[in-house]
Amino acid sequence: MEDKLLSGVGRYVFQAEPFHCDCSYRLFLAHLGNQLLNAADFHSNERGYGVRVLSNLHKTWVLSRFTLEIYHLPEVYESFTIETWVNSVMRYFTSRNFSVSDARGKVCAYARSVWALIDTDTRQPVDILKVNDGQIMKYVEKDKCCPIEAGGRLKFSTQGKQQQSVVMHYSDVDMNGHVNSMKYVEHMLNLWPISWYSEHRVKRIEIAYVAESHEGDELKFYVEQETESISDVRIMKVGGEQEIEVVRGRISFA
Amino acid sequence: MEDKLLSGVGRYVFQAEPFHCDCSYRLFLAHLGNQLLNAADFHSNERGYGVRVLSNLHKTWVLSRFTLEIYHLPEVYESFTIETWVNSVMRYFTSRNFSVSDARGKVCAYARSVWALIDTDTRQPVDILKVNDGQIMKYVEKDKCCPIEAGGRLKFSTQGKQQQSVVMHYSDVDMNGHVNSMKYVEHMLNLWPISWYSEHRVKRIEIAYVAESHEGDELKFYVEQETESISDVRIMKVGGEQEIEVVRGRISFA
Repeated sequence: MEDKLLSGVGRYVFQAEPFHCDCSYRLFLAHLGNQLLNAADFHSNERGYGVRVLSNLHKTWVLSRFTLEIYHLPEVYESFTIETWVNSVMRYFTSRNFSVSDARGKVCAYARSVWALIDTDTRQPVDILKVNDGQIMKYVEKDKCCPIEAGGRLKFSTQGKQQQSVVMHYSDVDMNGHVNSMKYVEHMLNLWPISWYSEHRVKRIEIAYVAESHEGDELKFYVEQETESISDVRIMKVGGEQEIEVVRGRISFA
Repeated sequence: MEDKLLSGVGRYVFQAEPFHCDCSYRLFLAHLGNQLLNAADFHSNERGYGVRVLSNLHKTWVLSRFTLEIYHLPEVYESFTIETWVNSVMRYFTSRNFSVSDARGKVCAYARSVWALIDTDTRQPVDILKVNDGQIMKYVEKDKCCPIEAGGRLKFSTQGKQQQSVVMHYSDVDMNGHVNSMKYVEHMLNLWPISWYSEHRVKRIEIAYVAESHEGDELKFYVEQETESISDVRIMKVGGEQEIEVVRGRISFA
């Protein structure tokens, strides 16, 4: 199951297939996001601490924070390479970085993510170092460069204005049984019209995952404009009499 | 640009990546559908009659009918191969078939599709045989087997009951500037809850694309149950005072 010769960095090649591209002939950002998650999944399973191993131990990884900085999105038909590595492991969190390069080797994007390990029965955090003999520590890559700022606490100054409400359905939910992390991003980006994207591109997106949501949940999207090019989006789910915060996101356009 | 040695059948390998799988640990049907469209795009471009060539001539392919019969969807992590070929060309329509096989070579699914060639300025049909010196005729594969029934006219006996209404946004629209063919399928399959999919699977889906829809269009989904296991879905867009039919679909569950 484990291979001591494996490098800490995993490399996975994908392609910007035409029907995963938007009107600007570039890969949908949320699709790139899902390929980052797929790369993380492949990387961790190959190194013996992925969900395929952990599910037998009733544990799973949960994405807690995600920051993506984009220089250019892969163009239609272009292949691109995702590199991913774990750059630090704490007791309850690991930090995993990504870089995305185009076919000429030019960097398209960098991303940072923070993951918690939870017990699938209790949904409580688990000490990462005690699971599977601390297997994850064998592959930490401290020195590889990821020159983007980590996501902060995302403090919003106001509640924002409700702009949309979307009910979660079958196709929003992935294998984990809750709404897919990148589906939130997809619904968030839907708050802007195509005409906006023909003149602006997402330069940076920061997401804090606060609570899970499920099929049937109604999600309300509250938007606050920080500056002309930075918008904060708060996703709340309607639960009984009060609304519960699910996701907080900050999008910077260029 | 053309290669006389190319076979009429194109073969493309994909993978059922974990974050493109549903709660049953199998590839989302709509994602498989988009990979079929991607394979069709690769195949036609490699043979000199794809949209990359045609866009210079102000022409494009439009999907008119799509029928997919599924024996089993690819399982998470499994690679699968899509074969596609054009099996007949008429003046205004071509018929393209697909087969999908899993890593062990077992057939997962077959599909049939009908495409029209249109002029992108007038949106009117174009005589396929007159475009690009009838290049497409060089690669017709009449004899390769696709043992599923072609989609019929999809006559519905009633108007059906409205079950949902969805407004089309940025992420529903692909490079063609209108709602992606498989996004209709995704929204259609959202009419059933996850609990339904844990006991039923889609055995066959037939779609007739009647009109295009765009960002901002409100689509209403009318459902009529033909039998216990067959449902008809009519998608109408709200246009002025009357509703316009956009898509007709029939889904058979097993």
